[in-house]
Amino acid sequence: MPPRQPDPHLIVMMGGTGDLAGRKLLPALYQLARQDLLGPSWQILAVARSADLDDAGYRIWAREQLAGAGFGTDDLPGWCDQCLHYACIGKGTPEDYGALAQKIATVEKGAGLPGNRIFYLSLPPVAFAPTIAGLGEAQLGNGPGWTRLVIEKPFGHDLQSAQHLNAIVHGQFSEDQVYRIDHYLGKETVQNLMVFRFGNTIFEDLWNRDRIESVQITVAEDLGVEDRAGFYETTGAVRDVIQNHLAQLLALVAMEVPLAYDAQSIRHEKLKVIRSIRPVLPEHVVFAQYTAGNADARVIGYREEDGVASDSGTETYAALRLDLDTWRWQGVPFFIRTGKRLQRKLTQIAVTFRRPPVFLFESMGTSRLQRNCLFITLQPDEGFSLLLDVKSPGEPFTLQQIPLGFRYADQFGDLPDAYQTLLLDVLLGDQALFVHADEVEASWRLFDPVLSATPQIQTYPAGSWGPSAADQLLARDGQIWQMP
Amino acid sequence: MPPRQPDPHLIVMMGGTGDLAGRKLLPALYQLARQDLLGPSWQILAVARSADLDDAGYRIWAREQLAGAGFGTDDLPGWCDQCLHYACIGKGTPEDYGALAQKIATVEKGAGLPGNRIFYLSLPPVAFAPTIAGLGEAQLGNGPGWTRLVIEKPFGHDLQSAQHLNAIVHGQFSEDQVYRIDHYLGKETVQNLMVFRFGNTIFEDLWNRDRIESVQITVAEDLGVEDRAGFYETTGAVRDVIQNHLAQLLALVAMEVPLAYDAQSIRHEKLKVIRSIRPVLPEHVVFAQYTAGNADARVIGYREEDGVASDSGTETYAALRLDLDTWRWQGVPFFIRTGKRLQRKLTQIAVTFRRPPVFLFESMGTSRLQRNCLFITLQPDEGFSLLLDVKSPGEPFTLQQIPLGFRYADQFGDLPDAYQTLLLDVLLGDQALFVHADEVEASWRLFDPVLSATPQIQTYPAGSWGPSAADQLLARDGQIWQMP
Repeated sequence: MPPRQPDPHLIVMMGGTGDLAGRKLLPALYQLARQDLLGPSWQILAVARSADLDDAGYRIWAREQLAGAGFGTDDLPGWCDQCLHYACIGKGTPEDYGALAQKIATVEKGAGLPGNRIFYLSLPPVAFAPTIAGLGEAQLGNGPGWTRLVIEKPFGHDLQSAQHLNAIVHGQFSEDQVYRIDHYLGKETVQNLMVFRFGNTIFEDLWNRDRIESVQITVAEDLGVEDRAGFYETTGAVRDVIQNHLAQLLALVAMEVPLAYDAQSIRHEKLKVIRSIRPVLPEHVVFAQYTAGNADARVIGYREEDGVASDSGTETYAALRLDLDTWRWQGVPFFIRTGKRLQRKLTQIAVTFRRPPVFLFESMGTSRLQRNCLFITLQPDEGFSLLLDVKSPGEPFTLQQIPLGFRYADQFGDLPDAYQTLLLDVLLGDQALFVHADEVEASWRLFDPVLSATPQIQTYPAGSWGPSAADQLLARDGQIWQMP
Repeated sequence: MPPRQPDPHLIVMMGGTGDLAGRKLLPALYQLARQDLLGPSWQILAVARSADLDDAGYRIWAREQLAGAGFGTDDLPGWCDQCLHYACIGKGTPEDYGALAQKIATVEKGAGLPGNRIFYLSLPPVAFAPTIAGLGEAQLGNGPGWTRLVIEKPFGHDLQSAQHLNAIVHGQFSEDQVYRIDHYLGKETVQNLMVFRFGNTIFEDLWNRDRIESVQITVAEDLGVEDRAGFYETTGAVRDVIQNHLAQLLALVAMEVPLAYDAQSIRHEKLKVIRSIRPVLPEHVVFAQYTAGNADARVIGYREEDGVASDSGTETYAALRLDLDTWRWQGVPFFIRTGKRLQRKLTQIAVTFRRPPVFLFESMGTSRLQRNCLFITLQPDEGFSLLLDVKSPGEPFTLQQIPLGFRYADQFGDLPDAYQTLLLDVLLGDQALFVHADEVEASWRLFDPVLSATPQIQTYPAGSWGPSAADQLLARDGQIWQMP
């Protein structure tokens, strides 16, 4: 099976001089081009406010960005000259958008492109609505070929704002044109979660309340808020990670087998999961802030960071217990947690299986069996690990947990960046790894009340694994946070 | 939990100057002594025909054997002097056994032993019956303490001879005194098969006809008949390997969860498995002989070996399909095979799981999924390997089988020899890893008719994986011999 080939197309990067464009989008496109995955012909048009740039100036900037990302091949200048263009959007007046439409037509004509267009909103959230409106007014919502809109996160900051943004989007674009990015979904291990579950009989047969005791999902960061304190003060862990990434991971872990491996079927099942989650009880929520502690070095607490209020109520850590009202998962707690300044960077799903109903080896004087546990690690060291009990060799008769393991790096070397995967899917018109409007709203509907309840803020020392209240949350069910 | 400690005891090695005694039993006992696992006090009395040896002479012989087995510690001579003794059994007259009884009493008195005795029949099969009779006549079947009888394989060469031997054994010993050795059962991986199945929920839940498509057990040898052609001509693969080792492995793989981890419960379940096997159909049997071929070097065929008839009908290879009439295994074929001069030494259980009922990734153009397969390797590289399908990174969307694996050597280094495990179990009075009289007879009852039917002999080149007829045996069920 040869790789799928995108149609000839133009990528319009709104915010083409921004951090994301330079650090992620251009390198991903360059990599895809080098692998001959961008199809027979394409062009890239960067759009930004600056009137000081032109095509030539942008190409120089882009070369610097690509060199900074580690690319230093001889064909780099030629590549930039061949496919990169720049348009200034100024203040975003109707005239500015008219000029953009003109520039698009010129680039397409020059390259013989048939008018298939991607508008990638690599912009701050506040610019989403006016940009969509501007594109619509300039009749750019429907071009001569297909038109697709890519929107970066965050998608709204609560249910109301998300609904409002969806309404604006749907005013100009139909849902099948819209690609809401959650870059977690572009990670190989996340895609693999579906292959793992539905390509193998072994685990799917065990994937239910009869066999599984609890599911845990951890998205831990070792970094603090860095230079984003202002943004973070109005965001917090639930909005930054739980409402989007964690909700998506949970949906993929818990969903029923989709009818087919396509966007419609997968989104349908993910949506069902999110809708099945019971309203979160206040006693199932732990919010916390990091205090000074030892991470890589001695670091200050969150309230001491520049730009953070000394009485800030923003959570840098959140742990929640979620309960799914489905036949498959009734009675199986899902524990999710995320936090900044935790002991190390780790994104991991831990599935704990029930103990055997009979402890056969008690008569041999062995201590009680551990539970079998499956770890799916998304970063930093992507792979699977299944903890089993085996007998230690020789006397006395003792059991020991050992891992049946697999590391992606061992088998496959470096994995492609999530943005490569997601950009290629946009070009191919495959929405499977993008978030549907209904999913966004269902997720906000679940987490909005959690935020409104303004839970009491605990503390945890930087460099730890979070507040003790999060351990107690699990202890009530006889569980602990599982680590490989 | 400290190691279990045997009672003070005397080990009487009948055939104490033989190959097995020198190569396996003495090294195992010496190792156990060095690990302080033989209990508070013990002595070893070697018994053989030679009148030329005495205690001192035997100790010299034993030292050479232990040195040959790689032991060269300073305490070796002292150890031999401290615990080794020799008695001549001559022609095995009642007087000879009377003298043996005398010597036993002397050694026990000298060492202050209370009269717990193990009689280990490290003898050719023809000597089993007269030795047991001799021991019985000298009143050695029941001593002042406990008395245990260890019998090496082969136990009979057909049903009738096995029943006859059991009758002789039971004339002097009760079944709970009898330890029939199958050294495969002393291997760590075999013991671990029970921990693996019953100490972990993961696999036991899948261990049935709904989830498993076939089970394969391979006992492959790369060697030929070496200098044992005379023995092998009257034995063949079924008697040498299938009736004992393979039947035992199959019983451990297929058995129900025992009531407890003890000899009675385990043997009960193993016996049920062997009894559940349907009479083997002639079309489910493949017999073959190796012909000249390339193994390590160019080797001759079986019929060209010294001591083998040029029209020999002895099978050096056998593959059988077995069907178990149980609720758990109805409709799941068990394929077993063994052979000499195969491509490499390998003892392995391969459990093939059914394919997922729906092939979800067909729309991505991927080829059909492999079946999940669990390999339990007993030798030479002991460990587990579970083959799963994962997605290969990047484009195009392809699936790849990868192993979740675990090698004993990686975690535990060298494993104890099977004889250490089994001797210690005899000393501890633990019959769990020994074969019951009923199991031996049930197994002969199954395989006797296979031998009587004298199946046609195929051929296979030395160094191959056996005759093509064995592949066809599996192909009828859409199966292949699984290799990791």
